Amino acid sequence: MIPSHADPGLAELLDSLPADRVITDPDRMAGYRWDRARAPEVGTPLAVVRATSTEDVQAAVRFAARHAIPVVPRGAGSGLSGGSSAVDGCLVVSTERMCDIEVDPVTRTLVTGPGALNAQVKAAAAAHGLWYPPDPSSYEFCSIGGNVATNAGGLCCVKYGVTTDYVLGLTVVLADGTAVELGGPRLKDVAGLSLTKLFVGSEGTLGIVTRIVLRLIPAQRIPSTLVATFAALDAAAEAVLAITRRMRPSMLEFMDKVSINAVEDVTRMGLDRGAEAMLVIQTDEPAGHAAVEIADMSRLCEEHGATEVFSTDEAETGEMFVTARRMAIPAVEQKGSLLLEDVGVPLPRLGALVRGIEEISRARDIVVAVIAHAGDGNTHPLVVFDPTDPGQTARAQAAYGEIMDLAIALDGTITGEHGVGRLKKPWLGSYLGDDALALNHRVKQALDPQGILNPGAVF
Amino acid sequence: MIPSHADPGLAELLDSLPADRVITDPDRMAGYRWDRARAPEVGTPLAVVRATSTEDVQAAVRFAARHAIPVVPRGAGSGLSGGSSAVDGCLVVSTERMCDIEVDPVTRTLVTGPGALNAQVKAAAAAHGLWYPPDPSSYEFCSIGGNVATNAGGLCCVKYGVTTDYVLGLTVVLADGTAVELGGPRLKDVAGLSLTKLFVGSEGTLGIVTRIVLRLIPAQRIPSTLVATFAALDAAAEAVLAITRRMRPSMLEFMDKVSINAVEDVTRMGLDRGAEAMLVIQTDEPAGHAAVEIADMSRLCEEHGATEVFSTDEAETGEMFVTARRMAIPAVEQKGSLLLEDVGVPLPRLGALVRGIEEISRARDIVVAVIAHAGDGNTHPLVVFDPTDPGQTARAQAAYGEIMDLAIALDGTITGEHGVGRLKKPWLGSYLGDDALALNHRVKQALDPQGILNPGAVF
Repeated sequence: MIPSHADPGLAELLDSLPADRVITDPDRMAGYRWDRARAPEVGTPLAVVRATSTEDVQAAVRFAARHAIPVVPRGAGSGLSGGSSAVDGCLVVSTERMCDIEVDPVTRTLVTGPGALNAQVKAAAAAHGLWYPPDPSSYEFCSIGGNVATNAGGLCCVKYGVTTDYVLGLTVVLADGTAVELGGPRLKDVAGLSLTKLFVGSEGTLGIVTRIVLRLIPAQRIPSTLVATFAALDAAAEAVLAITRRMRPSMLEFMDKVSINAVEDVTRMGLDRGAEAMLVIQTDEPAGHAAVEIADMSRLCEEHGATEVFSTDEAETGEMFVTARRMAIPAVEQKGSLLLEDVGVPLPRLGALVRGIEEISRARDIVVAVIAHAGDGNTHPLVVFDPTDPGQTARAQAAYGEIMDLAIALDGTITGEHGVGRLKKPWLGSYLGDDALALNHRVKQALDPQGILNPGAVF
Repeated sequence: MIPSHADPGLAELLDSLPADRVITDPDRMAGYRWDRARAPEVGTPLAVVRATSTEDVQAAVRFAARHAIPVVPRGAGSGLSGGSSAVDGCLVVSTERMCDIEVDPVTRTLVTGPGALNAQVKAAAAAHGLWYPPDPSSYEFCSIGGNVATNAGGLCCVKYGVTTDYVLGLTVVLADGTAVELGGPRLKDVAGLSLTKLFVGSEGTLGIVTRIVLRLIPAQRIPSTLVATFAALDAAAEAVLAITRRMRPSMLEFMDKVSINAVEDVTRMGLDRGAEAMLVIQTDEPAGHAAVEIADMSRLCEEHGATEVFSTDEAETGEMFVTARRMAIPAVEQKGSLLLEDVGVPLPRLGALVRGIEEISRARDIVVAVIAHAGDGNTHPLVVFDPTDPGQTARAQAAYGEIMDLAIALDGTITGEHGVGRLKKPWLGSYLGDDALALNHRVKQALDPQGILNPGAVF
């Protein structure tokens, strides 16, 4: 059934789509082989389809289905788990050109193509005094389609939830090329199975999302910001628990010593290089109450041994610290190549996770920087290594696996918001267990019996 | 394969479960045949299993699977769509005895059996200063398992979301008796498909939920309350839009003249019998800001022609109006039997929906009371009829269908929070369309190939 890659009926594909939609030139295709995970084992696509509409995606998938050719969907290519890595002989279906956005301020919904960037979606909403909350650190260069595919999170999710909480409807092209509309601009709808929710987070393995209906909320108030440094990791973790137990900050971020120093190297903004941990916390409650919360949180940080506590209700100063946190990944990246983790644990295990990561780092003699959406228990250990040093590379890879094993042992997850992709697939089974894994496979099999949708990712 | 109902191997079932778990006496079984929808065509069960554990449910489902016997899962029997109506020869699996609740205030999660009542879940959370928001009007007598099965909503959902937004994990017994654990006490988790979300709202057609992990949030502040009456339906609908466009009330409820009068008949609390519509609105913002919002909302109601506006920041007085709203269904029930609708529309269509219902009521010469979670566009038209009058019964049934047809025509849904069950099944296809319906069937087929789980409901 599978044609050789040399003769895959390319002419048939070119016939079924306008010429500007299809790239077959290897040099131009090169930019579509990797995502941000830079997975070493990527394949060479047969062709790249730069779809402009649901119909284009349907034509591409129908062609792929007829010839049992793998289809790798792709948004902005900013994925961190290799979910958009090309496989040999595949059709890469890029949605980067599908980026029209329409806002309905009365229904408080927004309809967008999957290729629009998260930042563009936010901006379109903001033009009407509205807000699309989910905010991955990569919001300026990640696509909303990728956000839906991975059920992406971000910094404000501790109060405002993740992508799935805002997706009201989807148009999805299924494995046989059928386009199906699920949900719509209705705030409550329980007619039939929750299929919209099933496609969110399915990483392109069940269908390709071509249109997204999002729920918006009124614009966020300007938040007040609190920054606290700690001389001990556990003290910071305990402060997090004390805060989330009582209130709902709109941001509760953690940086360890390595990431603080990496950011300070780049910004020279005067961060405390000696601190073991730093928390960046915001509240967006109305002004009077925000002041109360900031005072309460300051007190809780101090009670848990904070060495320094600084707060401001000035937007610009606060944003400086948030930017520092957002810069952590690029700043650490300057130290070497990264293996980017995304492990999460139940909140009370946060301290144990961070301490365990420190032990792995020491035992493997490898630098690991830890940043975290602490209020969600979702951490991003960044394993730093020099790819030209085979010994170090091997130790980094070992540490990468051990951190996921540690998370599982702490009743945690191997991925909180980046997705399984291709890089974390080996750990999925031991996380889910046999029965849940089998159930995943059963749903996949039902929706994609030929297994052409993003093969090698998740499953 | 299907044994006769007279000889279904009951002895085998009785062997596989302790004696106190199984009811076969017809008189005792009678209480398990109907749910609150009182669907006329209910069947007679073969037996009722009153499960006390996941293992009991597994034993019951394994028995059913071996003999291809239908299984009808049942919580508190408060369903409004006939989703728990018994079918002939079925095994009713009741979870009413599975009601243990454990709260973890540090993780801010709660683990409960499906049989616990929503009110019990709320009370267990409140004992730790925490809150489980979803609040169906039936919260005092509906089970949390039923809430999960239907993805139930309620009054606070306009700000706080519906059941699925709070479900972090589930234990589910599948159609072959396997028990699978999905999700858990992790606030963010994207490892594998979103199967937890798939089971929420699946109305017992994909599996039986035996354990639920819920997310909690800090206790709600005491809300301030605004009540506004209007001389015209459209004016009230416009006021709703003006409010939701700008702010996020924690409750935004609508009652029409018929329901106002029905409640006034029972309570004699002095509601305006002449008003065409009444809005009951709450905000739970911090005190200072709540006063600002109440003032803004009062002004918006007045600008849209409210005849009377009353507000209070006193909890007891506010609760009186909320209770009036919650009493609407039982109050209207005193006028006759009810066909209870649950249609929802995109917010700007709310006025058109309510006006259209009025027209149907007039054309069919049948009383229809309308209450609505107006801020969500989710309405509950109550079609009142005398079941001893065949002509009126037929007109009521015709109106019931026409209201769903109207909702579909207005780009709305046939059910916002009650579920499809058995009563709304005939309308599901025309709402979803062929492709989405086929996709629903494909998932159902994959998870329940024998079709034993709640046959006749949804599918």
